Amino acid sequence: RPSLSYRPMMVTMAMSTSNKNKSYWTSVHEDIGAHLRQAVVVKEPVEVYEPMRHFVFAAPVNMAPVLCVAACELVGGHREQAIVAAAALHVMHAASFIHENLPLSDRTSLIPKSKPTMYHAFKPNTELLVADAMLPFGLELLASSDNPAGNNSGRILRVMVEMTRAMGSQGVVEGQYNELQCSQCDDDDRKLNGITDVEMTYETYKKKEGRLHACGAACGAILGGGSEKEIELLRRYGFYVGMIQGIVSRRLGPTEEIEELKKLAFKLREVNSFNDENAEVIFSLVDDNITHVLGFNLG
Amino acid sequence: RPSLSYRPMMVTMAMSTSNKNKSYWTSVHEDIGAHLRQAVVVKEPVEVYEPMRHFVFAAPVNMAPVLCVAACELVGGHREQAIVAAAALHVMHAASFIHENLPLSDRTSLIPKSKPTMYHAFKPNTELLVADAMLPFGLELLASSDNPAGNNSGRILRVMVEMTRAMGSQGVVEGQYNELQCSQCDDDDRKLNGITDVEMTYETYKKKEGRLHACGAACGAILGGGSEKEIELLRRYGFYVGMIQGIVSRRLGPTEEIEELKKLAFKLREVNSFNDENAEVIFSLVDDNITHVLGFNLG
Repeated sequence: RPSLSYRPMMVTMAMSTSNKNKSYWTSVHEDIGAHLRQAVVVKEPVEVYEPMRHFVFAAPVNMAPVLCVAACELVGGHREQAIVAAAALHVMHAASFIHENLPLSDRTSLIPKSKPTMYHAFKPNTELLVADAMLPFGLELLASSDNPAGNNSGRILRVMVEMTRAMGSQGVVEGQYNELQCSQCDDDDRKLNGITDVEMTYETYKKKEGRLHACGAACGAILGGGSEKEIELLRRYGFYVGMIQGIVSRRLGPTEEIEELKKLAFKLREVNSFNDENAEVIFSLVDDNITHVLGFNLG
Repeated sequence: RPSLSYRPMMVTMAMSTSNKNKSYWTSVHEDIGAHLRQAVVVKEPVEVYEPMRHFVFAAPVNMAPVLCVAACELVGGHREQAIVAAAALHVMHAASFIHENLPLSDRTSLIPKSKPTMYHAFKPNTELLVADAMLPFGLELLASSDNPAGNNSGRILRVMVEMTRAMGSQGVVEGQYNELQCSQCDDDDRKLNGITDVEMTYETYKKKEGRLHACGAACGAILGGGSEKEIELLRRYGFYVGMIQGIVSRRLGPTEEIEELKKLAFKLREVNSFNDENAEVIFSLVDDNITHVLGFNLG
């Protein structure tokens, strides 16, 4: 009788470039997870912190936090300078994911079917409030990481402005608004507005995933002490990574658009000043193999 | 035929102490309103900023922002050092008020009848998202007020930690959670938990109004450069103001408890070092006449 238990397939192979990149991303991801496990503990009030911990580890993972750490290291910073910001990005992303999935009277049935959805472990009321607690909690982690002796308060405040904008009305929230508008439109509305479904979807992941990942990379570069040119270059790179993630997570790809975005991303590598091994690692993130193979899980 | 138009009753009186205090609070309030009017403008995306501006000026006003400015001035700071923090407190309070009034499947009918409620000018979906944008927007206002030349990044970051804690799981959110638990309990539940309705309500406004006003006063003292002793004393004073506001806004008062809280607040004045005219002004806030007469309106 064949065994029903799962046995991993053992493959012996030389440490290829791709494997080296993969192990880099895995280590970054593990460090963020470790930081979150010690930062998000169940304490009083348990009614708030227990669902908070649940959602921090149950929410889907995106690439903005690992990009934040990698960008910091690429510009010559140390991992610990970016790890709290990366954890904060994950907590805030998880908060916005909860609200996005909240059953409201005017949208219960409108959440696009193609998107990853959430198992509702708690009542809507608890889910609403716990996400309301998570957004400030993420920023609290970051603000309280300021070490007066470290003389980096200015950088932390700059990162806070980046994050609040990306999470708010000029980023994720606008994207979510677009997405719901989009799902509520019928064909006549679209004709009236002169905008196609594809264009609306593009606007959505530009604001949501694009803006969030651009923010992650820019924040890492700021915290690592990158130049303004490096910060803006990594912001653009993060934007392309986010756009690709937006397409992939909506199961729209692989499309020509992904290939186009990859080309744009690789072009950034050519014009920049990071012509060394570290640059190879960070640019490996736009490689489908990396993002798909990793299957990140923070639990 | 009698005129139906409203004519204010003209009363001529000498500028009493109470009037002087009242004009102080009015001027603080007007300055916060003026700052909000120029900081919260309708811009792109209009779908987010228009409801945001609506709610910033439609949400009920509490005393945390004016306390923040008054505490700053009391410890010797300038008004402009605290005005952005005060505006941020109002924006975040407005955000939490919106979510508190959001109709959710498990609480539509459970919002206590005695509380001020909200006219729903937008759909639940818009109200959810706009409040999600307002919390980071409030913190963005504060973070971007940092002037690198001003050398006060450390104070701003400390204030951010204060605010994120007060708004989140250790303050307003816990209070809101309590309040809803409370409204869902029946008498048997209460007997089982060994907690009375009065005790639950007390816990609620301790966390919500108490914590928020304590935060407002402490933040003002931090930004104005107060000593640790002054910061903690003003935090306690703010807590009493918030407790009184919590009782008054639930239309539970006037009760013996308010008198007790007033006594505690005035006791703080005796033991502190602010034995001058400015102290008289800030302590006038616990006087019912001031809080009731003002009828603050930011519009």
